[in-house]
Amino acid sequence: MRGADLIDIKRVLAGYDLDDLSIATLGSHSALQILHGAKKEGFRTIAIVEKRRKWFYEEFAHLIDQMIVVDSWRDVASKDVVLRLRESNAIFIPHGSFVEYIGLDRAESMEVPMFGIRSIFRIEADQRMKMDFLAKAGINIPREYRIGEEFRGPVIVKFPGAKGGRGYFIARTKDEVRRGIKKALEDGLISDEEEALIQEYVIGVPAYYHFFYSPMLKRLEILGADIRYESNADGLHRILPFVRGEIDVSFVVVGNVPLVLRESLLPKIMRYGLNFVRYSQERLPPGVIGPFCLESVIRDDGEIVVFEFSGRIVAGTNIYLTGSPYSHLYWDEPMSVGRRIAREIKLAQEEGKLDEVVT
Amino acid sequence: MRGADLIDIKRVLAGYDLDDLSIATLGSHSALQILHGAKKEGFRTIAIVEKRRKWFYEEFAHLIDQMIVVDSWRDVASKDVVLRLRESNAIFIPHGSFVEYIGLDRAESMEVPMFGIRSIFRIEADQRMKMDFLAKAGINIPREYRIGEEFRGPVIVKFPGAKGGRGYFIARTKDEVRRGIKKALEDGLISDEEEALIQEYVIGVPAYYHFFYSPMLKRLEILGADIRYESNADGLHRILPFVRGEIDVSFVVVGNVPLVLRESLLPKIMRYGLNFVRYSQERLPPGVIGPFCLESVIRDDGEIVVFEFSGRIVAGTNIYLTGSPYSHLYWDEPMSVGRRIAREIKLAQEEGKLDEVVT
Amino acid sequence: MRGADLIDIKRVLAGYDLDDLSIATLGSHSALQILHGAKKEGFRTIAIVEKRRKWFYEEFAHLIDQMIVVDSWRDVASKDVVLRLRESNAIFIPHGSFVEYIGLDRAESMEVPMFGIRSIFRIEADQRMKMDFLAKAGINIPREYRIGEEFRGPVIVKFPGAKGGRGYFIARTKDEVRRGIKKALEDGLISDEEEALIQEYVIGVPAYYHFFYSPMLKRLEILGADIRYESNADGLHRILPFVRGEIDVSFVVVGNVPLVLRESLLPKIMRYGLNFVRYSQERLPPGVIGPFCLESVIRDDGEIVVFEFSGRIVAGTNIYLTGSPYSHLYWDEPMSVGRRIAREIKLAQEEGKLDEVVT
Repeated sequence: MRGADLIDIKRVLAGYDLDDLSIATLGSHSALQILHGAKKEGFRTIAIVEKRRKWFYEEFAHLIDQMIVVDSWRDVASKDVVLRLRESNAIFIPHGSFVEYIGLDRAESMEVPMFGIRSIFRIEADQRMKMDFLAKAGINIPREYRIGEEFRGPVIVKFPGAKGGRGYFIARTKDEVRRGIKKALEDGLISDEEEALIQEYVIGVPAYYHFFYSPMLKRLEILGADIRYESNADGLHRILPFVRGEIDVSFVVVGNVPLVLRESLLPKIMRYGLNFVRYSQERLPPGVIGPFCLESVIRDDGEIVVFEFSGRIVAGTNIYLTGSPYSHLYWDEPMSVGRRIAREIKLAQEEGKLDEVVT
Repeated sequence: MRGADLIDIKRVLAGYDLDDLSIATLGSHSALQILHGAKKEGFRTIAIVEKRRKWFYEEFAHLIDQMIVVDSWRDVASKDVVLRLRESNAIFIPHGSFVEYIGLDRAESMEVPMFGIRSIFRIEADQRMKMDFLAKAGINIPREYRIGEEFRGPVIVKFPGAKGGRGYFIARTKDEVRRGIKKALEDGLISDEEEALIQEYVIGVPAYYHFFYSPMLKRLEILGADIRYESNADGLHRILPFVRGEIDVSFVVVGNVPLVLRESLLPKIMRYGLNFVRYSQERLPPGVIGPFCLESVIRDDGEIVVFEFSGRIVAGTNIYLTGSPYSHLYWDEPMSVGRRIAREIKLAQEEGKLDEVVT
Repeated sequence: MRGADLIDIKRVLAGYDLDDLSIATLGSHSALQILHGAKKEGFRTIAIVEKRRKWFYEEFAHLIDQMIVVDSWRDVASKDVVLRLRESNAIFIPHGSFVEYIGLDRAESMEVPMFGIRSIFRIEADQRMKMDFLAKAGINIPREYRIGEEFRGPVIVKFPGAKGGRGYFIARTKDEVRRGIKKALEDGLISDEEEALIQEYVIGVPAYYHFFYSPMLKRLEILGADIRYESNADGLHRILPFVRGEIDVSFVVVGNVPLVLRESLLPKIMRYGLNFVRYSQERLPPGVIGPFCLESVIRDDGEIVVFEFSGRIVAGTNIYLTGSPYSHLYWDEPMSVGRRIAREIKLAQEEGKLDEVVT
């Protein structure tokens, strides 16, 4: 949390007119949901948008009170944008594309109150730290192998920054692993073979769980679940007889499909969520605030193996703009994760505890 | 209906304070939906939960007025639990896990008024009786083969109690069938090869239809449809090039995905539902009450082949906690199957006909 | 637009009592949604149903004020039906099955005010005109090959009237293409090999976008997205190890599954939608009115290739009877495409501009 150490968000917050807050986010990922939810809760909204996508967000002008147009994402953390956000007493909502677009250092040190904890950004940026975090939280993760180690079944080899289906490969033998890593070294993807993370490819079905930890209500809510829709992996089976061996499988997320889980799996899923919250409170005090996501494979013996997490709102929540089968168990009104964020800010605001939900 | 013959639910009901009913169910399967729906209709709610899952249902304490904690499911039909349920004037809602968890005999003879007909439990417990029921109802079922009989295309061989992806195998030749059955005999899965049911594996796509027969409104409603999400069958295609021939396909249901049907298929689906109701009225008078599910494969010629049914609420309905694209055709309010059950009980209560919806 | 040239809908409309309109459609495809939506907006409703399906639509009698029963779809455009529709001041809503069921000429010349432009029917009926329309609109389409031309990867060969998974095949080599076309000639599917359209089979995942262009609000709304559920293509992967090479893949749509898109793809999707509207205004003035659908494959490089469009409401919208994650961005009430159509008619009616939304 290098950057974060340098900034003093409490001081910034002290300068805010707390009766006149805005909610701001980047125009991408889950922005429409976040803005829609903020409006529902009565906040003014700010969208920071790239020039080339301005026309698109103007289609939703009724959801956006102020648009801050930037030439490129790099400008998001610029002094000018930061000042404009502060002038509007803005709480910034980081989403899954935020760190990716503006870079880890800028994200950590952006001097605007941010919903959630930014200390988790650095952990997420490192595959090994991430898996270590999950394991220490008491969450079942895939087995890791060393180069040259024997294994059964396929493995997935991930390089730093593997993202959205890029930067990894699947292998069946230790020789395939070696060859893939050698090629990554030659291609400059990695500079040391130790950077490659070799994980068991867990056989089962993928499932993603949307959690929300509320410091105000002191409870963890499960607000939804989804399956990612990935190109070309989720299309290949339709023509497999025609493409056997000729096409590489890829896993680029292009959308999401709703999912409900077998109720008997929910206690295990909830337990993982609670473990995540508790360990984050130990390791990254005050601990996770608001949305996070555990990304898993469910095996056919009912075991749930988590291979990834996201410390923020994930795009899969976009499915549930008017609530999910789970959110309605807690909230008797349409409650998206975007709206839930705004609700938490409102609750904090009302109780004079805004500093407990932003960093 | 051996056990059911011994009990007199009408007498139990006579002792109830009908203005002060509770709705009770087991903490699993579709319990959250059932409890949520009961609350929506203004009932007090009771969840019978296993000790080890108590903490989980406490997360939803706002949906549960009374929790009856049992050491194991076997205690659900115990005298103590039954008395506590009766003290609360409880109508018990059996769901898909009920018979599985507490056993057929106990389920049939549990002396608490149960929504729906318990006479169907015994039919469901027997693969051949089940298929016979469907066939006699005038519903298209898969072709059955005898051991040694020639067939084209794959077959599925099911053993008694096949459930959630366990207890069956797929075979392509009659020799594979023989070998699989021989192994099942050796493993003690069956004691006689006649216990194995050899069915055509219907090529097409699976689809599950959620029906609700209302004795109060005297109408059949189609309240939703879903696709089951099965581990590992629904994940394997993502890495098929890497696992060819090395991994056994399994079909363990871990969740459900929403589905709407082509409207031109709906009349056939509805006809099947009506056939099911009519035949149940003949064979198991007064006939099916409330939710049931037909579980099918839709072939590419539009034919719908039903390979299974459930005489109760199925977990796929959990998708539609605030109603489905179909429920809104009947009800201008959010109507889950759980809530629909409570509504039917309320309608029966108001008309003094509670004995027409419980057994 | 041969037939359409002969009729004068403005004259028919002049004879209508504009304060007493009905909304009419054919009993199939998305009729229940359309009727439900019309009711929600306060219109009287008319369903034209085939005799054999009358019983089914009677199950939804509460949504249907008048049922016009026909012996076969051919009678829909008969003088008798047309007169009855006019007597009720009916606006007819064509859906995806309309032209298919009653034929292009009858559809074009049916002398009842129709929501949307009928000039697009003829373009849709011809694969090459359709692809040409998309290309000229500035929408990315699959590459087309000539017979005998070399290609990489699979191609799909479509014959005129290819529909719902019938009338085409997939091929991997130019010899397979030749053989398939030769067979189609022999089978009488085509009379000239030039009728076959040979297209790149785009590798990726299918995705369908539901648009609505509102002449009243002068805006394009994206109201949803879906994935088609196709028999047997979407079931085969479950048993692939057992059916390798033995079963032909088919693509018969039997239902639809909800989908949300990655927000960063939405600008491209919206741009395609806007391009479609603008080009339709040039080529088929006054341009598209109400719902249309772009049918695409999303490649793993994020490119979106549109291989088909529908100029009317598509069945995938049936998923969203109470609105979609997208519709709620525009409308703070449950807004299906069926209801959106009725709303547009109401807006036009209120402003005395009904002639701007019907042809």
